[in-house]
Amino acid sequence: MVKDLYPSRVNETSQIVRRQDPVIHNENARTEGPLSAEEIDFYEENGYILLKSFFQGEELQKLKQELDSTMEDHQHKEGPDIIKEPSSNEIRSIFEVHKDKSYFENLSKDERLVSIMEQILGSQVYINQSRINFKPGFKGKEFYWHSDFETWHVEDGMPRMRALSCSIVLTDNYEYNGPLMLVPGSHKWYVQTAGETPDNNFESSLQKQEVGVPDEDSMRWLVDQAGGRIDRATGPAGSVLLFESNTMHGSAGNISPYPRSNVFFVYNSIENKLEQPFSGKEPRPEFLANRENIQPIQPVSNKSTARS
Amino acid sequence: MVKDLYPSRVNETSQIVRRQDPVIHNENARTEGPLSAEEIDFYEENGYILLKSFFQGEELQKLKQELDSTMEDHQHKEGPDIIKEPSSNEIRSIFEVHKDKSYFENLSKDERLVSIMEQILGSQVYINQSRINFKPGFKGKEFYWHSDFETWHVEDGMPRMRALSCSIVLTDNYEYNGPLMLVPGSHKWYVQTAGETPDNNFESSLQKQEVGVPDEDSMRWLVDQAGGRIDRATGPAGSVLLFESNTMHGSAGNISPYPRSNVFFVYNSIENKLEQPFSGKEPRPEFLANRENIQPIQPVSNKSTARS
Repeated sequence: MVKDLYPSRVNETSQIVRRQDPVIHNENARTEGPLSAEEIDFYEENGYILLKSFFQGEELQKLKQELDSTMEDHQHKEGPDIIKEPSSNEIRSIFEVHKDKSYFENLSKDERLVSIMEQILGSQVYINQSRINFKPGFKGKEFYWHSDFETWHVEDGMPRMRALSCSIVLTDNYEYNGPLMLVPGSHKWYVQTAGETPDNNFESSLQKQEVGVPDEDSMRWLVDQAGGRIDRATGPAGSVLLFESNTMHGSAGNISPYPRSNVFFVYNSIENKLEQPFSGKEPRPEFLANRENIQPIQPVSNKSTARS
Repeated sequence: MVKDLYPSRVNETSQIVRRQDPVIHNENARTEGPLSAEEIDFYEENGYILLKSFFQGEELQKLKQELDSTMEDHQHKEGPDIIKEPSSNEIRSIFEVHKDKSYFENLSKDERLVSIMEQILGSQVYINQSRINFKPGFKGKEFYWHSDFETWHVEDGMPRMRALSCSIVLTDNYEYNGPLMLVPGSHKWYVQTAGETPDNNFESSLQKQEVGVPDEDSMRWLVDQAGGRIDRATGPAGSVLLFESNTMHGSAGNISPYPRSNVFFVYNSIENKLEQPFSGKEPRPEFLANRENIQPIQPVSNKSTARS
């Protein structure tokens, strides 16, 4: 059994402890590229970086089309990996798109993305989870503050903080359509949350997380450490947001007419594969946390294809 | 019976019609002050204006103290004019503070405020509604888009668009703590909403408005007219936001640690007093819509007092 470096949900009260892993896992990250030394510095310090207009033009159009047609294809399907709005039956998320043997699988292996993940994580990588998300205008729901790593560690058995989320933003994100909010520097601290994980917690937590969320005092403390700042991932469609597995993030609801959609890949180091969940509970399903036949990604070159 | 110039909630579908009243009701507004011609232009064009840091220093501190102590005084009181959070019993709003025969009554008559209302509304004015609001951090609820005038007209019998809201902001408002959002220029159009007003609608509509809210197509159209822009009332504590009775506004929830509080006065022209509600229903209670003993405000000079 691997030592639990980040116990959580084991006490009745919350506690904040220091992160025990580096943020940049590669000594040569600042000279290797593709991210510049300044970009690596920013990511290390803040726990996220927005690469504006990473995808553009025809390639961005293609991405949007693929998202729309995948949504449409799944409209009348049911399955645990398809999350629908309880009231309207509209699709909100489709998981495991990196195994579609088609467009999104190819995108997840895109060498322009994978080389950045390798630069940061200091090893080959694989996809731990993927999904496409569609959040409608007018009725987009809030998502409360959380660290993904806390859940991945406790419920999935991810041993170390050596993973990151890559969100390819497919709609313009404004201040007023519920952009992702991030607490700068929060990835340097680990909030051991209070309470215990219920069985099959994921069945409700995908819509509203009840355990594993930080208490208000911890959140106040984290925001204080950031000098009172909360950053928002606003930018044009085609931007790519990278955020560290332990960065505290959330989003307000969206009453604007503007929907938000994105493609979401979680890259994990091949040296950080999942163990048994530290909660002692059953692992979550494969579509939420990949543990079968894990192989490092062999990057593919997409750009020429997209332009052909 | 006064002619209903702004019928609403009378059809099964929504419709957008032109505003039939001026926004600036005073021919000499641009030369009279206290607002400058540029400020009057901005208000006329957009339907709101934020006067940054209107109250400052000791006067602002006093305002905050009075709000806090009024909240405390009412903590263990009950009444229809005290709105509490259903789950926690915490106070969210206290109405009718302009009749407290003390600080807030005096503030509502402040000549620095009243002279602006007279400049815009072109007559003497009175307070139609007042309240202090406290929205906590972390769990501040969203408030969906609405025009106040639509409710004031249908449920209270306000004949014309000749009123405005004055919100004295007592906390710093950031992009990320759920600031009021406004659609520029929306006050020039009137959305006749669909449906019918239930009896005693106010009992639920103060927490969540169900009728009188614009449909999504109308909201899209209004935001399109504004070139896709939605403005946010962000600024330091002590700022004063003025917005026209018919300006479409709303706010997202607030998951940040930062609470929001304000003092809210609705000034109406003395020539625009309430008639019978155009819904044909019973009028709402006095604390929501003043109709008893209406007298024009005799402005008072507070600043010297505050500084003494």
